[in-house]
Amino acid sequence: MTSEIRALLREELQGLSAYGAPQLDVAVRLNVNENSYAPPTEVVRAVARALEGEIATLNRYPDRDALKLRADLAAYLGHGLTAEQVYAANGSNEVQQQLLQAFGGPGRTALGFGPAYSMHPLLAAGTATGWVDGGRGPDFGLTASHVEAVLREYRPAITFLCSPNNPTGTALSLDVVRAALAATSGIVVVDEAYAEFARPGTPSALTLLEANPRLVVTRTMSKAFAFAGARVGYLAAGPEIVEAVQLVRLPYHLSALTQAAARAALAHADVLLSTVEQIKIQRDRIVAELRERGHQVADSDANFVLYRVARDGSADETDQKVVWRRILDAGVLVRDVGLPGWLRVTAGTPAETSAFLAAVETSDSLPAAVETLEN
Amino acid sequence: MTSEIRALLREELQGLSAYGAPQLDVAVRLNVNENSYAPPTEVVRAVARALEGEIATLNRYPDRDALKLRADLAAYLGHGLTAEQVYAANGSNEVQQQLLQAFGGPGRTALGFGPAYSMHPLLAAGTATGWVDGGRGPDFGLTASHVEAVLREYRPAITFLCSPNNPTGTALSLDVVRAALAATSGIVVVDEAYAEFARPGTPSALTLLEANPRLVVTRTMSKAFAFAGARVGYLAAGPEIVEAVQLVRLPYHLSALTQAAARAALAHADVLLSTVEQIKIQRDRIVAELRERGHQVADSDANFVLYRVARDGSADETDQKVVWRRILDAGVLVRDVGLPGWLRVTAGTPAETSAFLAAVETSDSLPAAVETLEN
Repeated sequence: MTSEIRALLREELQGLSAYGAPQLDVAVRLNVNENSYAPPTEVVRAVARALEGEIATLNRYPDRDALKLRADLAAYLGHGLTAEQVYAANGSNEVQQQLLQAFGGPGRTALGFGPAYSMHPLLAAGTATGWVDGGRGPDFGLTASHVEAVLREYRPAITFLCSPNNPTGTALSLDVVRAALAATSGIVVVDEAYAEFARPGTPSALTLLEANPRLVVTRTMSKAFAFAGARVGYLAAGPEIVEAVQLVRLPYHLSALTQAAARAALAHADVLLSTVEQIKIQRDRIVAELRERGHQVADSDANFVLYRVARDGSADETDQKVVWRRILDAGVLVRDVGLPGWLRVTAGTPAETSAFLAAVETSDSLPAAVETLEN
Repeated sequence: MTSEIRALLREELQGLSAYGAPQLDVAVRLNVNENSYAPPTEVVRAVARALEGEIATLNRYPDRDALKLRADLAAYLGHGLTAEQVYAANGSNEVQQQLLQAFGGPGRTALGFGPAYSMHPLLAAGTATGWVDGGRGPDFGLTASHVEAVLREYRPAITFLCSPNNPTGTALSLDVVRAALAATSGIVVVDEAYAEFARPGTPSALTLLEANPRLVVTRTMSKAFAFAGARVGYLAAGPEIVEAVQLVRLPYHLSALTQAAARAALAHADVLLSTVEQIKIQRDRIVAELRERGHQVADSDANFVLYRVARDGSADETDQKVVWRRILDAGVLVRDVGLPGWLRVTAGTPAETSAFLAAVETSDSLPAAVETLEN
């Protein structure tokens, strides 16, 4: 960038690069927690029909309030929710950005417990909201007492909890959510992007909505629904939170195509979600096999696994950038989330999982790396 | 909203209502400058085919950089532009919001010349950017000397010009754009949402891009392309401006469906844009007929017309809210843009235009209104 345009940018953006994982053309892509299973023919046909029905009226603006989609999402979520308690946008990133525009902004602070979803601090920066990282324990766990202490100290306008947490994969106990609600008078957002993959018995924060008007649960169709390309995120909360984000959303923010595609997918939720059990089997297989080989692995309620690249007892820390490159050289793209010594891998099909586990095996058997690489 | 949630909202949002024109179920809708012509069968088929090709891979995230779409948009615009100089998002509102996030924000000021596009100040508010209304003459004209004087006084980080202007309809002389660029060291955005409808000989600010790295031209597919429901807006500027908005855009902001639908529409630009000439005929018919009846009418280079509801020489100002309601009662929805004494009407099909002109005739022949109505 020439100095003239760079000088006009907001100070905090100068010198930054655009956010996003490398988009590389690799056979096995396990880096952005996509669902490896393409929508089955039955769903493809239904979505195609739904879209075709919209094209002839694309000269008109879409329903600004996306009421039918919101009703369908509410029905999917259950818990007695209605359209007035649900709001949808172009991915849960946009939902969370709008929450920050409504309840955060200049002079206010948002807070998360890192390592967590890396977009949260970026969304705060993009809305001129201050950001505090409340941290978590060395095992990536999050306790009610830690959350309480941090929130009482910083009193953020918005608190982000992730359950299951990304990139670690572990779901939260509802006690932690309750503790957050008790310790702050601000908005508490529980990002449940991966909720459908949770291990049996893991409760959703949706169960706490009725009693807590300051609670927001965000979800996405990108993961369990295998609908990342359609960009549909949503929230469930009290109707007043929904009214609040509607004050800052751009008019007609959600296209007629997006609304129709999402509704068709939701009408086939049972088919689409049938991949979830298969993915969980591969997820559990990765956890078990890596642990067996002596890797430290975080408990996962998501469609991905975070693991320590060095095996237990190894003399010194292995650079995850080097291992990332070795696994890539073996034809598998995983994610370096910037946690020294750790990598994140998405649970894919059985074949993809086998390819990943073989690539790790190869990588482990190589001599200790000396080079450090950019990724 | 209960006091608890209201108290948590940003102060400047408290008491506001969600933005947007009333979405009423009326036979003739001429209120939001949509293109009244639905996409023809040939285009519907092409878009359907393009969308169908995407559905089977919707489990994957879309191309984050939308490179193919940007190349197609550049080819459509001409002027030697390439993909590196074009950026697309979910409507030009989102493009302009991202420009404000990158170059505006807290402590900075954006400036427009009202009455102009009513979203510009709202986008500034949503990005915590200060807003100054530089105003314009009583005939809604904008001169280079006025622009120069205002910009030298306020030195905004971002200046918004609209050509053709909404809601007045008149295009700017390029001298005004040049004057703005000379009078400020900030970013100058020319919102050309309605450029395709301009009267012959009206130049586009695209012709000034090469020499002016601080100039941004925004466009939309919502109007001339009859694609409002698909939500596609874009900008043309130097590659550094494109890099800048990519720093603040949400990752994967533009869905695979949106990208594919827009590309299919662009491949049929000639067919879709063939409605433009028909709309201009109706636009010119509205201007001529209303003037003949004694209404004051702004020159229009757009697909809409702004006119004074009272006929020339009438004793006192007629409330546009009353006339708006009368026209609605006659089955035609037009737009009260909040300009006392004026209404805006979209040029539709010949039949819609006739319905509007008949409704105005009826309205004119009624006795002077005494009531004032909310709309």
